[in-house]
Amino acid sequence: MYGTLDKYEDKSQIRKMTIPELNNLASDIREFLVDKVSKTGGHLASNLGVVELTISLYNVFDFDKDKLVWDVGHQAYVHKILTGRKDRFDTLKKYGGLSGFPKAEESKYDMFETGHSSTSISAAVGMARARDLAGKDHEVVAVIGDGALTGGMALEALNDVGYRKSKIIVILNDNEMSIGKNVGGISTFLSKVRVTPKYNKFKQEFDSTLRKIPSIGNGMAESIEKLKDGIKQVIVPSMLFEDMGLKYLGPIDGHNIKELSKVMDMAKKINEPVIIHVVTKKGKGYEYAEKNPGKFHGIGPFHCENGELCASPKKTYSGAFSNAIVEIAKEDKSVVAITAAMRDGTGLGDFAKEFSNRFFDVGIAEQHAVTLAAGMAKEGLRPVFAVYSTFLQRAYDQVVHDVCMQNLPVVFAIDRAGLVGEDGETHQGVFDLSFLSHIPNMCIMAPKCIEELGNIFRWALKQDFPIAIRYPRGGDNPNAIISPSENFVKGKWEVLYKADESRITNTSNKIALVATGKMVQQAVLVKEKLINKDVALTVINATFVKPIDKELIRKLVKENYTIVTLEDNLIHGGFGSLVLEFVASISHNTKVLNLGFDDRFITHGSVDTLYKLNNLDVTGIANSIMKLI
Amino acid sequence: MYGTLDKYEDKSQIRKMTIPELNNLASDIREFLVDKVSKTGGHLASNLGVVELTISLYNVFDFDKDKLVWDVGHQAYVHKILTGRKDRFDTLKKYGGLSGFPKAEESKYDMFETGHSSTSISAAVGMARARDLAGKDHEVVAVIGDGALTGGMALEALNDVGYRKSKIIVILNDNEMSIGKNVGGISTFLSKVRVTPKYNKFKQEFDSTLRKIPSIGNGMAESIEKLKDGIKQVIVPSMLFEDMGLKYLGPIDGHNIKELSKVMDMAKKINEPVIIHVVTKKGKGYEYAEKNPGKFHGIGPFHCENGELCASPKKTYSGAFSNAIVEIAKEDKSVVAITAAMRDGTGLGDFAKEFSNRFFDVGIAEQHAVTLAAGMAKEGLRPVFAVYSTFLQRAYDQVVHDVCMQNLPVVFAIDRAGLVGEDGETHQGVFDLSFLSHIPNMCIMAPKCIEELGNIFRWALKQDFPIAIRYPRGGDNPNAIISPSENFVKGKWEVLYKADESRITNTSNKIALVATGKMVQQAVLVKEKLINKDVALTVINATFVKPIDKELIRKLVKENYTIVTLEDNLIHGGFGSLVLEFVASISHNTKVLNLGFDDRFITHGSVDTLYKLNNLDVTGIANSIMKLI
Repeated sequence: MYGTLDKYEDKSQIRKMTIPELNNLASDIREFLVDKVSKTGGHLASNLGVVELTISLYNVFDFDKDKLVWDVGHQAYVHKILTGRKDRFDTLKKYGGLSGFPKAEESKYDMFETGHSSTSISAAVGMARARDLAGKDHEVVAVIGDGALTGGMALEALNDVGYRKSKIIVILNDNEMSIGKNVGGISTFLSKVRVTPKYNKFKQEFDSTLRKIPSIGNGMAESIEKLKDGIKQVIVPSMLFEDMGLKYLGPIDGHNIKELSKVMDMAKKINEPVIIHVVTKKGKGYEYAEKNPGKFHGIGPFHCENGELCASPKKTYSGAFSNAIVEIAKEDKSVVAITAAMRDGTGLGDFAKEFSNRFFDVGIAEQHAVTLAAGMAKEGLRPVFAVYSTFLQRAYDQVVHDVCMQNLPVVFAIDRAGLVGEDGETHQGVFDLSFLSHIPNMCIMAPKCIEELGNIFRWALKQDFPIAIRYPRGGDNPNAIISPSENFVKGKWEVLYKADESRITNTSNKIALVATGKMVQQAVLVKEKLINKDVALTVINATFVKPIDKELIRKLVKENYTIVTLEDNLIHGGFGSLVLEFVASISHNTKVLNLGFDDRFITHGSVDTLYKLNNLDVTGIANSIMKLI
Repeated sequence: MYGTLDKYEDKSQIRKMTIPELNNLASDIREFLVDKVSKTGGHLASNLGVVELTISLYNVFDFDKDKLVWDVGHQAYVHKILTGRKDRFDTLKKYGGLSGFPKAEESKYDMFETGHSSTSISAAVGMARARDLAGKDHEVVAVIGDGALTGGMALEALNDVGYRKSKIIVILNDNEMSIGKNVGGISTFLSKVRVTPKYNKFKQEFDSTLRKIPSIGNGMAESIEKLKDGIKQVIVPSMLFEDMGLKYLGPIDGHNIKELSKVMDMAKKINEPVIIHVVTKKGKGYEYAEKNPGKFHGIGPFHCENGELCASPKKTYSGAFSNAIVEIAKEDKSVVAITAAMRDGTGLGDFAKEFSNRFFDVGIAEQHAVTLAAGMAKEGLRPVFAVYSTFLQRAYDQVVHDVCMQNLPVVFAIDRAGLVGEDGETHQGVFDLSFLSHIPNMCIMAPKCIEELGNIFRWALKQDFPIAIRYPRGGDNPNAIISPSENFVKGKWEVLYKADESRITNTSNKIALVATGKMVQQAVLVKEKLINKDVALTVINATFVKPIDKELIRKLVKENYTIVTLEDNLIHGGFGSLVLEFVASISHNTKVLNLGFDDRFITHGSVDTLYKLNNLDVTGIANSIMKLI
């Protein structure tokens, strides 16, 4: 089916191939990617962009000794194909199948696991320093996107590597995109570089020109050498990197294997940190992805022939947020929205169109985003920072210090809280309750259904303290029938069903199932499942994860309830443990069972599969409850 | 006593003063600072460095409408003196007294509370955008050190502000220091700028020179305009900032009020983001601080006449770490040490001298530091990242993803865990157990006394998983008699005293007091205090905060103990809640009491005062225990 790819077995073949053969391989890989990802879903556009880049890496380096680190990691599919995993691509992102990111357990060539952006240079510098101390001389290569370069830690790493001069090769994969279009001063700078002629050519021309100038007076002569070094900035303003101490090579056409290989070979010979600026096109070679790389960044199964999604769009929490924030912003001019390079993913696209002067995309810069919001709130604006749960991890300190310590009314719109499923370990939103709920002054809420989300935001944007609102990927469970609340009182929970004590034989079989967010839907289904069992179930919606409803808990304790908490977060330090700590402080004979995730990372797979594996599906929860009585 | 300062009452006076008068004021403030801080202790060197800078700010701006944000904030003493707080300087850093950092409740001129580095530009941009949306036109000024500029979030903020062109004025206070000497590519870049003549002067000279050149051939002509814009980089390589989209002014002598005021006035007129590069001397005007700015960064009470500390140095945990890490590194060549600009504070000075090639100061860059360590560990090194508890907050995501998810054997040497006292809210190390203990694969240990610290590090550096070792500021309580352990088994606790059940009247008065770290010393003293009471106390050292000793807890539960946990961390999500969660999962009638800090930020004051206020002094703990029986 694929002329060259079918014959491909081992990376050692690449170095024996001619450039035309490598181009054939590239072309086959592109077709393979479009075909496979159209069935499994996955990160298509970024991988189509790095086909030649990846082949060139394997053409120049020997990754049995050289080391390769992929920043973010969602663009490592070609690397996976080249390192013995092409036959497993049907299992991509499925439970037990290939991960969508580098994973050490899959291959020794997955040197460093990634998932969040901007880490690769740091990891590569670490590996390079280990090499230097061991007296070895292999190469360490980090491939990082221009978007990831706006993340603070990548700049911290450049600052370090340029200073100590540890030899690494940074491949700057410049496609002008993060998931969406890039923003920022660095991005503007890179655009300038992209449109200017190459440095080497100009340097020659200038040198010869300068020699023609007969005399330069007024104390200028001694500056000529400096001038020659500095002049390249005029044409190729590469100073940003060279100021930081890295040698700069580029810009290079990222789809030209011959040129890429030549420059990578040059970089090997330089005994200092080098940055190779490679210009690629996200989605390259598949017209629908080239036209709309954002849509094809991370995509579900689609029809190859027209690029249309197989599944029709469903009602999602992100969509509800999108509508709500636009409506609220119409009424309240102080509402502004911030994203860290996730405009569309977080649902801020419509807001950005309607209120362009109140919309702030700061690049992949969650730390800055949070403190920016704090500064805005301090001056009377009502900022909403829309962010995925997993990415907010980057700004823990800023949430503590700049928002909560000053008790500033920033609203965090935390999407993808709980399980995200297919993206696995690095993207599951199962930490946020554990890293947010211990922060003084922080209030945490979660809508129990999509319809409630807008009401919660409306309420939250009228309060004068920090509020985190967390909600899951995707939509609601159509089987769970739930009505949204419209009014909220800080720290007050909602009793959805009151236990019918008349029908139980043992009065101790009274259980209060206190769930939060989408888990309320599981709780409702659990109640239905146990309708004929010898258990009286009160179902409570903990609209507020924090503060908890102490009054209601006291009542439950007094009425001899067993309390079961239910959350899609780690148990330790999360919602259930807040409840448990309070119960322990007022009563020493109330049973409390905390349901949530145990102390381990959660792999990739469908959300339903993962719930089941963690006993958080309806059957699992029901079983845990029946064991109590 | 102070000619000009004594007469100073209100900031409005400054703009009426002549330059000689302002210089007198500066001189008085310097004397005042040395005198006051010699008695209270505090951040001296950085404040001496910004006397003229601060006066100039008040000379040029009107902070009744303009906004001022101090990065880090420990250099805001002069600002405090100028805004009505000079008479309270005797209370500096004392409980109920002046904070050592900006605090909104102290003054409306403390616009934004800081404590950690690199946040000021973000906050200022937020304020500027609020101003722009409100159609106002006041200035927003951020004062940031060159050290803080190596922190990733400051670069994230520059990237954003340079792109959107929000008008702020960034004052780069360049003293070549963080707490110690600065490192990094940006630092090298700034040094180059400092030693070169000023841009404006050169630009004139070059323009006139260029006009003298008769003709320039070979397609060069059209580059002349670019050349003129670019040429300033040759002499003043300010491109780093201009590349990011900021106007650059400087370098300026930071101790010349006239020149500073002139340039600040210029900056007001530019309708774009501006960075003013100000060169200052840390410790300026007090010879001992000028000679040794590191020592006088944050200092205890000292003798003005010779700069010697009043108190003689005591045995500290930092000192024990310093010795231990050098000894271990002698035996194990794979051990390397990393610091984020805190070489001396963390006790790595000796290591750096002895093993300069295995010592890595990465600048104020905790995120990079952690992932760098992960890269090193991946390649067989045994990295130790020495960091204060509060600063590790900056690298939460990297600890989760880059270290723990990959289960890499990085050792975190977490100094200043628990209360730090005088530095207050922003520096108390009371969050680390809450943000670390829910991370899968993370092991957390704490020495119960200084002598045990080295043994723990020796053990930890032989394990193959991530380990965080936390220990407090200062030294041991001389009244608590404790012997260090030499051997450790993962997850095994140490029973220090077994309860004497023969002497209690009620068998339910059996209490297991499980303490961690330095709180074990409190526990031992509590035991002595309660020796004649009707309570049988078993005292346990939880060497391992995580994993907890489940076997021992099962035994305590079985023997009907009441369990009291004791930690110098927030209760929620910390050590005690780990114990509570486990007990709740195995028993529903075991009393557990968690002692630690409640859900609020902890102000400044002496550690003893703060323990008392939080009922964690020996009397407070003893009372809590007696209430149980």
